[in-house]
Amino acid sequence: MTDRQAITVREARREEVAAIVALLADDHLGKDREEPAAMDAYLAAFERVAADPRNLLCVAEDGAGRVVGTFQMTLIPGLSNRGAELALIEAVRIASDRRGEGLGEAMIGWAMDEARRRGASAIELFTHNSRADAQRFYERLGFARSHVGMRRGL
Amino acid sequence: MTDRQAITVREARREEVAAIVALLADDHLGKDREEPAAMDAYLAAFERVAADPRNLLCVAEDGAGRVVGTFQMTLIPGLSNRGAELALIEAVRIASDRRGEGLGEAMIGWAMDEARRRGASAIELFTHNSRADAQRFYERLGFARSHVGMRRGL
Repeated sequence: MTDRQAITVREARREEVAAIVALLADDHLGKDREEPAAMDAYLAAFERVAADPRNLLCVAEDGAGRVVGTFQMTLIPGLSNRGAELALIEAVRIASDRRGEGLGEAMIGWAMDEARRRGASAIELFTHNSRADAQRFYERLGFARSHVGMRRGL
Repeated sequence: MTDRQAITVREARREEVAAIVALLADDHLGKDREEPAAMDAYLAAFERVAADPRNLLCVAEDGAGRVVGTFQMTLIPGLSNRGAELALIEAVRIASDRRGEGLGEAMIGWAMDEARRRGASAIELFTHNSRADAQRFYERLGFARSHVGMRRGL
């Protein structure tokens, strides 16, 4: 018997890249910018992330072994705040059929614990202006809408 | 004769850490969170940044050899956007007596060139909600206010 509710959050494995890309593409913003057929590019990116000790690509796996969520955390060293490290969370996605089960809390809770363990003093993230639900979710977890997130293509 | 207007943007040196911290502290938000006397913590943070090839702590130096600006850029590998790297800019400061001379454009222009050279597809940054001038400045440089920046202490 498997338990869909038993969630494990951990670093991703190479063989899970296709499942992660499927989550990135199953999104109103991601569907136009991802191309799951370009797997070589995603695998090369996975290798770059995996080789960098300050970047953690993570998954949430349910008790049946399915990848049902993903996020990435980057630890950023810097001088500001008396030399504190910052944690940045990006690319947070949850399978569309598994929302409202607490997966997001489990993933962000794991990220906050890991960021603290590594000595980070704060955690930050960007959410697209259109993601009002995500903003309410992060506010419930204690995040403040303190900044404007600005972006430019290169 | 020295030329105050001749600006060089480049990676920072260890002996410039005190000047960088002074810029971080000379700010309505930074003045309460920086402590220039805690130089050991800043020097240790400098070493962590300098040892990481994906983090660039930079200064703008004028023709008289004075550090008149600083910023940090972090290159973030990831799967999103078909495995593109992102560039994040943080801790942008310009000496209060040297604003309006184009230093910001010089620094952000250097950062965009370097991010492109390293293959980044986009550049992003957080500005505190209270920094309205900074937001207008970045909009002039082509940045869009596309995201909400959220933050939580740990």
